[in-house]
Amino acid sequence: MFNPKENPAQKQSIEELQARLNRPMAELTRFLENQVEAFEPQIRFLVDYCLKNSGKRIRPSLVFLTGKTDDPEIFKNLVQVSAVVEMVHLATLVHDDILDGADRRRGQPTISAKYGQHTAVLLGDALFSHALHLASQFDTVEVCRLVSKSTRRVCSGEILQTFRRGDWKLDQEEYLEMLDMKTGELFSISTHLGGLLSGYSSYDCEILRKFGSQLGIAYQAYDDLTDFIGDETKIGKTLGTDLSTGKATLPLIQLFQMKNQDATDQMTEALETANEDKVRFLLETHGIFEVGLDFVAQLWNDAVETLSELPDTLTAKEELNTISQLLRMKLDELERSQLSA
Amino acid sequence: MFNPKENPAQKQSIEELQARLNRPMAELTRFLENQVEAFEPQIRFLVDYCLKNSGKRIRPSLVFLTGKTDDPEIFKNLVQVSAVVEMVHLATLVHDDILDGADRRRGQPTISAKYGQHTAVLLGDALFSHALHLASQFDTVEVCRLVSKSTRRVCSGEILQTFRRGDWKLDQEEYLEMLDMKTGELFSISTHLGGLLSGYSSYDCEILRKFGSQLGIAYQAYDDLTDFIGDETKIGKTLGTDLSTGKATLPLIQLFQMKNQDATDQMTEALETANEDKVRFLLETHGIFEVGLDFVAQLWNDAVETLSELPDTLTAKEELNTISQLLRMKLDELERSQLSA
Repeated sequence: MFNPKENPAQKQSIEELQARLNRPMAELTRFLENQVEAFEPQIRFLVDYCLKNSGKRIRPSLVFLTGKTDDPEIFKNLVQVSAVVEMVHLATLVHDDILDGADRRRGQPTISAKYGQHTAVLLGDALFSHALHLASQFDTVEVCRLVSKSTRRVCSGEILQTFRRGDWKLDQEEYLEMLDMKTGELFSISTHLGGLLSGYSSYDCEILRKFGSQLGIAYQAYDDLTDFIGDETKIGKTLGTDLSTGKATLPLIQLFQMKNQDATDQMTEALETANEDKVRFLLETHGIFEVGLDFVAQLWNDAVETLSELPDTLTAKEELNTISQLLRMKLDELERSQLSA
Repeated sequence: MFNPKENPAQKQSIEELQARLNRPMAELTRFLENQVEAFEPQIRFLVDYCLKNSGKRIRPSLVFLTGKTDDPEIFKNLVQVSAVVEMVHLATLVHDDILDGADRRRGQPTISAKYGQHTAVLLGDALFSHALHLASQFDTVEVCRLVSKSTRRVCSGEILQTFRRGDWKLDQEEYLEMLDMKTGELFSISTHLGGLLSGYSSYDCEILRKFGSQLGIAYQAYDDLTDFIGDETKIGKTLGTDLSTGKATLPLIQLFQMKNQDATDQMTEALETANEDKVRFLLETHGIFEVGLDFVAQLWNDAVETLSELPDTLTAKEELNTISQLLRMKLDELERSQLSA
């Protein structure tokens, strides 16, 4: 059903890729552990809790796969910048969990649930500040400029989403813009900085940035789909929160986009009466999950297409293509679980 | 009662000082207004609301009084850095008001009260990020380094305060450390950056930093006093919030420090039963407000003393001394209102 683009550059297997990431990830873990000491003594246990409960580290992976990890000097910088991006991401998660009232994240109680909203607001702020402080330790101000601008855009995306809570008739264009701000932004800064710190041309950096953004959009759309059709025990976080927190995401947008008056009326009523079972039933009846999977696959295709604009001599091209296959595999898995449900 | 230190450098009157600040403040206002455009279109009205509702701008005053505003190139930098510090301060206020559940700030509804907690968390984040982005626009990374470190320390101070909520037996040393983190930090970065951008020696910058920190501590202790004995219509913000949000501040600390068993028992009971009238009555009976005013005057004296370490040739010495007199005048006024109450 997917018709993924064939990519001649894809020679590397996922296993090779994971092996390739072992050393950078171990360095990142060590680097992050050392950062705990930089915080004021009384709050270190909170920082430690956040950093230990770190997830898939997709953004650092993007930094490492884009950058020249073989050069010791560049590698050092890549580790530091991946820590910056990951810490900004963690700060947004700490704040998100307040807004969503989420109890669990990556299988563990959230800071907000465990230590209260006040602490979560302030700890998120402290993590943001420290991330920017790490960014300011490069010789060039460029890193700080890019990271602070990205961070602001991520927050603005979240504000937009907050404003649109309870408005189920979001159109697809606005939805995609939000995905770009919320998730595309940090993905794109990861690939951009990986390239910048490795001395790539500004043309290549722009393409890397575009790829990051598109992959981020595809990933977030996939994530929004799993909120409806995922398996909570597998995914390790509270699912179904988008509906309960009034967020219109891919499936709802696509149902309303069908312009089927009967489906629209029934869905509107189901949403107004907060009838979750009815919402799911309607989405299933109208084949929305399949449509959604196809849509994400198309977003994913766009990203892979962008990669092809990079010169073949760039090692990053092959490696980023391999990591993008991971998303494709996840999509396949979600489709299979959907078919067997 | 106060015995303020005589300071030979104080030749400038408060009026002269205010006149001197007119142009920089007008420039700062213009600069901040222009920043609104830098934010994503959909959130500009929120940023505008925050920036318009700007208060006394003490931190920018400190930047301008410390720095060489006569030099056009330096002046441009001072305006930008004062915007950075003010924006960090505004971000902390937006987040503070969530934590305190405060309805009004500077006579206007708070962002949290007007647009909800979610928006307030995210808007504070966006303001933080933009402040750091402005800091990253200097040629040197030094500004970004100092600001991001200060910001983290301010947040850590707030976390400490959150942890100690409801613990009325805070000792004076911990209290002063918190004041330094919460308020001294941004005051000290203002004087420090004013000096740094004006090319002062690192020795002078260190003294300026120390003075800023001490003035900030004195100012916050004064602010904590007004929370008990101030006039809400004059001060323009919700008072009495420290008690209702469980914060032990100067008056309570000083009552417990008397080691008068009877007073301690009665106060403990009044606090446990949330009997605000009884708390105030006990503080008054034991002359705590007078003790508090004396204590703040002493903190203020320390700051003025530090100023005297600066070379007499530094214009900043005279001007900072004059601004520090403003705090002294406020203290006098608070004392008079206390005596006439």
